[in-house]
Amino acid sequence: MTMSAAYEIAKNARRAGNTLKTLSNESRSAILYKIHDSLKAHKDAIKAANEKDLEAAAASGLSSALTKRLNLFQGDKFDTMLQGITDVADLEDPVGKVRLARELDDDLMLYQVTAPVGVLLVIFESRPEVIANITALCIKSGNAGILKGGKESVNTFREMASVINETIAANESTTGVPVGAVQLIETRQDVSDLLDQDEMIDLVVPRGSNALVRNIKNNTKIPVLGHADGICSVYVDEFADLTKAKRISVDAKTNYPAGCNAMETLLLNPRFGHWADVLTNMIANGVTLHTTAEVKKEYLAALEATGALTDDIKAHIVDANEAEDFDKEFLSLDCAVKFVSNTQAAILHINEHSSRHTDSIITEDKANAEQFLRGIDSAGVYWNASTRFADGFRYGFGTEVGISTSKIHARGPVGLDGLVTYQYQIRGNGNIAADYLGAGGNRAFVHKDLDASKVVL
Amino acid sequence: MTMSAAYEIAKNARRAGNTLKTLSNESRSAILYKIHDSLKAHKDAIKAANEKDLEAAAASGLSSALTKRLNLFQGDKFDTMLQGITDVADLEDPVGKVRLARELDDDLMLYQVTAPVGVLLVIFESRPEVIANITALCIKSGNAGILKGGKESVNTFREMASVINETIAANESTTGVPVGAVQLIETRQDVSDLLDQDEMIDLVVPRGSNALVRNIKNNTKIPVLGHADGICSVYVDEFADLTKAKRISVDAKTNYPAGCNAMETLLLNPRFGHWADVLTNMIANGVTLHTTAEVKKEYLAALEATGALTDDIKAHIVDANEAEDFDKEFLSLDCAVKFVSNTQAAILHINEHSSRHTDSIITEDKANAEQFLRGIDSAGVYWNASTRFADGFRYGFGTEVGISTSKIHARGPVGLDGLVTYQYQIRGNGNIAADYLGAGGNRAFVHKDLDASKVVL
Repeated sequence: MTMSAAYEIAKNARRAGNTLKTLSNESRSAILYKIHDSLKAHKDAIKAANEKDLEAAAASGLSSALTKRLNLFQGDKFDTMLQGITDVADLEDPVGKVRLARELDDDLMLYQVTAPVGVLLVIFESRPEVIANITALCIKSGNAGILKGGKESVNTFREMASVINETIAANESTTGVPVGAVQLIETRQDVSDLLDQDEMIDLVVPRGSNALVRNIKNNTKIPVLGHADGICSVYVDEFADLTKAKRISVDAKTNYPAGCNAMETLLLNPRFGHWADVLTNMIANGVTLHTTAEVKKEYLAALEATGALTDDIKAHIVDANEAEDFDKEFLSLDCAVKFVSNTQAAILHINEHSSRHTDSIITEDKANAEQFLRGIDSAGVYWNASTRFADGFRYGFGTEVGISTSKIHARGPVGLDGLVTYQYQIRGNGNIAADYLGAGGNRAFVHKDLDASKVVL
Repeated sequence: MTMSAAYEIAKNARRAGNTLKTLSNESRSAILYKIHDSLKAHKDAIKAANEKDLEAAAASGLSSALTKRLNLFQGDKFDTMLQGITDVADLEDPVGKVRLARELDDDLMLYQVTAPVGVLLVIFESRPEVIANITALCIKSGNAGILKGGKESVNTFREMASVINETIAANESTTGVPVGAVQLIETRQDVSDLLDQDEMIDLVVPRGSNALVRNIKNNTKIPVLGHADGICSVYVDEFADLTKAKRISVDAKTNYPAGCNAMETLLLNPRFGHWADVLTNMIANGVTLHTTAEVKKEYLAALEATGALTDDIKAHIVDANEAEDFDKEFLSLDCAVKFVSNTQAAILHINEHSSRHTDSIITEDKANAEQFLRGIDSAGVYWNASTRFADGFRYGFGTEVGISTSKIHARGPVGLDGLVTYQYQIRGNGNIAADYLGAGGNRAFVHKDLDASKVVL
């Protein structure tokens, strides 16, 4: 693909997006039902394509975990995927919501109205069901999507893409959803060329490994909605409740260690009398602690004093590499541990080392909690709750586009709202600026806000 | 300045920002009153520094328009600047507003709360009063600012910067606002190095010429809040009201031709019977029309038929350079003019050529207006109103940070709200994910929304 090919794809997407944003919610949802029906009707062809991918994966010696991700027909995965399309179709329309309604003057109304972002470039890895999920999210939110799947799922991807595009083409005259609303690309070179199209593409959404996200962030000026590392911390304060500290530290680390919302760093206030119990409880739950020299010395001394030191505990303590372990996403049952002298020191450590994802304080002291909630510069900041709650479904967002560690546009778990922006509408009656103070005239603005939730445009 | 010097500046700003975000509105406003008082007390020294800049400008042959911008003591400019600082101090706190409050379960509350963005890099050109304005906006919104002024105002800038920094230092123990909250840099090389600090700096705000903004956008991965070109269009529909069309076209073009919200392109539906009157009225108001061959031919024929063709009119018609004039910000009493056959053609032209700033339709036909309002992909989209209303003060935003043509974070005129983002807070009571469905447990989430406007945290 030459640069001009990438330009053509991006330009087609821009045009399709301009049409999509004018369509009603009913039209956008209608095509999703059609796509649902077509994918269901072509189940056999998709299954055959998926089997080709699985055979190629077996031949190339792909790991069983990756092969499992690739298998679209394991358990009820295919049916769940289909259900997901109609679930998204049935969501409330994210477009055209009035967020501000202000009377500027008689017959001069200002509205802030949600609108699609425009063109999304979505890059995902092996799981082929993501193509259906992303297609649904893009069309429902009125955005044109350019989709790139993983090379391991190329046959499944091609078959589903062809079904989706034929369905859009066959229904263009009735739904208005244009061919070009969803474009599929196949090679890494395509992605690389498209990442240069920052005039045409409004947002990149990578769904995959840290390496994928980091590589994309380093190679584009287009805003990226996502996260590379998820380095989440839990701070056990001097005034922590032991039961809460034990439950939360184990949940945050062990409930799903590969999750981006898992705890990677545990900060302990040594004035909390039971900090050693928190560590022992983590070890009992299979966690290996990467401790600073200070923590190791104090912890072993505490255990020896009570005769509680066992070989199992010893086997679960390793020396932290202080230059690396506090900036590391272990993605395993490992956790870096250090002492901090107070809430302020915890905040300083986290703001310096975390990936601005989600961090939690365990304390019964309201002042320390409020200091932490105000001081931490992350998308999620929790008091007495596990970092594992950082998730679109748990937040009640209906569907999750991703989790963002950017500081602008969308932070934390992102629902369909993350795929819309806003526009200002003015509805006047021939009004001109020159009639008003500051631009040559005498009229003053009224600036009277109306209840936006009651405005229907 | 070496790269590590830029890193140190950015890192100091990050640390100062982390402190600023924990301070109360009262503390942030208090330091602004102190800065107001100090600048007032140092008026003579600032005036002396400003005179040095004016002498250097005169010696270098700077244009009188630029010299006027440089003169901080012309008319009541200095007093207006001082007043602006306390005006910002008195605004409602943009930080800590609860935008969503949701009960996830008993004793498990989710809040979306506004928070400072973090670190802003603000680059402006000759007007020295901007330093006071930006200092006020940054501190009020809890952001650390790195400021770079134009080289023409370097003496004024240094004097004011030293007053501001001494005031912050002298009051750090009482207000908590840290030294480092506002840092001033002087050279273009500094800016260039800082534009690479995308891990530390969250937003760049350029306030100056198109060339400045374009150069910054092309040289950083940090999000840029601003606009380069302001290419605004007005479409006069078949069903336009002649009086409105005449008034709006003249206001949009002539009220302030150098403004980014001035009309640069006029699109005419030739089925509107009075389109020629719109053009004659513009010429009568001093506008030179850059017309397509088709518009020129039809317009001259119409004037000859009625005997209305004059030398003055002829002198105000030039041939449009079609490859350039419809993508051009004239910033003068010039306007590109072409026919479009209907609303859809107007939308296509605008989405292809505009800079996504502000565009307006003049029509009495509601269907065409709604089609335009939905179809245009710009920050502002108007019906029967002049594009000149695209302005923070006219929108009632109290103060204007700038006008953004980006599609995400903030669009159109941006008030203090454009300098904040949000965080999710969870306040729990020891809650863990493993208790809930989907993560190993049996509990379901409640997801009950409360009225966020009534929540005080």
